[in-house]
Amino acid sequence: MARRKLIYEGKAKILYEGPEPGTLVQYFKDDATAFNAEKKAVIEGKGVLNNRLSEFFMTGLMQIGVPTHFIKRLNMREQLIRQVEIIPLEVIVRNFAAGTIAKRLGLEEGTPLPRPIIEFCYKDDALGDPLVSEEHIAAFGWASQQDLDDMVSMALRVNDFMSGLMLAVGIRLVDFKIEIGRAWDNDFMRLILADEISPDSCRLWDIETGQKLDKDVFRRDLGDLADAYTEVARRLGVLPTNAPAPSKPTLIN
Amino acid sequence: MARRKLIYEGKAKILYEGPEPGTLVQYFKDDATAFNAEKKAVIEGKGVLNNRLSEFFMTGLMQIGVPTHFIKRLNMREQLIRQVEIIPLEVIVRNFAAGTIAKRLGLEEGTPLPRPIIEFCYKDDALGDPLVSEEHIAAFGWASQQDLDDMVSMALRVNDFMSGLMLAVGIRLVDFKIEIGRAWDNDFMRLILADEISPDSCRLWDIETGQKLDKDVFRRDLGDLADAYTEVARRLGVLPTNAPAPSKPTLIN
Repeated sequence: MARRKLIYEGKAKILYEGPEPGTLVQYFKDDATAFNAEKKAVIEGKGVLNNRLSEFFMTGLMQIGVPTHFIKRLNMREQLIRQVEIIPLEVIVRNFAAGTIAKRLGLEEGTPLPRPIIEFCYKDDALGDPLVSEEHIAAFGWASQQDLDDMVSMALRVNDFMSGLMLAVGIRLVDFKIEIGRAWDNDFMRLILADEISPDSCRLWDIETGQKLDKDVFRRDLGDLADAYTEVARRLGVLPTNAPAPSKPTLIN
Repeated sequence: MARRKLIYEGKAKILYEGPEPGTLVQYFKDDATAFNAEKKAVIEGKGVLNNRLSEFFMTGLMQIGVPTHFIKRLNMREQLIRQVEIIPLEVIVRNFAAGTIAKRLGLEEGTPLPRPIIEFCYKDDALGDPLVSEEHIAAFGWASQQDLDDMVSMALRVNDFMSGLMLAVGIRLVDFKIEIGRAWDNDFMRLILADEISPDSCRLWDIETGQKLDKDVFRRDLGDLADAYTEVARRLGVLPTNAPAPSKPTLIN
């Protein structure tokens, strides 16, 4: 196979040039990072699990009419996606207090929020992805008011769908992060769900026991991350058939 | 126990006066009817299953912020609900063609619809719950334009949530019917999801096999209805602990 052109390498994924114009190949790495990459490890099998889980969630979202960048899974670690212009904002939807909002607002982790709260963070690793308000977004032109309205609508639809999906397998969707991109069909621009949805980008707690089944297992040294992700995939019936057995993380840093 | 005042008896449920003003007790019968009650049977255990399933769905919907009439389950067949003024419209959401829309528009059953289609039927057994348009609804004053907009929003949220929930357990949400009521908090009127959500009011097909797991099993004589409902409850982990074993229906008519 000819060497592919690398377009972008992030902390957990690599984007390569795709076979057709307007497409990319998204490769899921086993690398886990936390605290803006201050903590790092390789979790064998994580990329395989996230590739399958993101396929499962995005396919389901497309079935209910939420446009996504997902085209098809190519192999254990790669999926073909549509190339989009990523809006430089992380869109976070929170149903229960956890992580930064708990710290910032002095809320106990697990406190139900009065309604789903949407936060925007400006995507910039050097700045640590800072929280921004609509005022900042408008002033710097990162998204128009119409884009923002559409992003909020999309985020709430993803939240409704994913909340139902997780409830069915005994999991509470505490919060999640999505990224959204612009795509052009002829001259018509529309917003498309991009990046990934996986236990890397969601907080998932077992409803009965409160056990964490997401990246906090790694952030907070609560056990084997691959075991947690495997449990999510097992409950959803999307376990990869040839995935390597979960193993202990190899700490890099 | 003192004899309770019966408020209303429908085909599958009975409403009794509740313990507090503004509450009702909703009793789930084992009666199954189809074709506007031309076909009838008693399906042992159906009421128990629907009571549990409706509790599960409504509780989940309230967690994502959809207001419902559900307060708490009282026992195997009864739940405490909030009394509402039912809007005389069945709200049907269809993701795939099945049932009346397939017949009326000449679509093959199972055809994916271009987007979720919402239909309103005027609740009137004598008329056979006829399909109506927004024009009819406005002209006869069954709901205001604001009510209709809010009903559509609520119906689409229920669709997103239930689609995700069913996908997680390998079930396709083909369509469903809800009823919505008006409730007053002080002088503020709001719309509330009422009635029930259960395999009586949804079309549920196994994604792999296409097997029907809903009331069509009874309508079309496809097997044991209680078995189908039990399968839905089993997959969702909400099987009643003391439910009678599924049995063959006793045909009444």
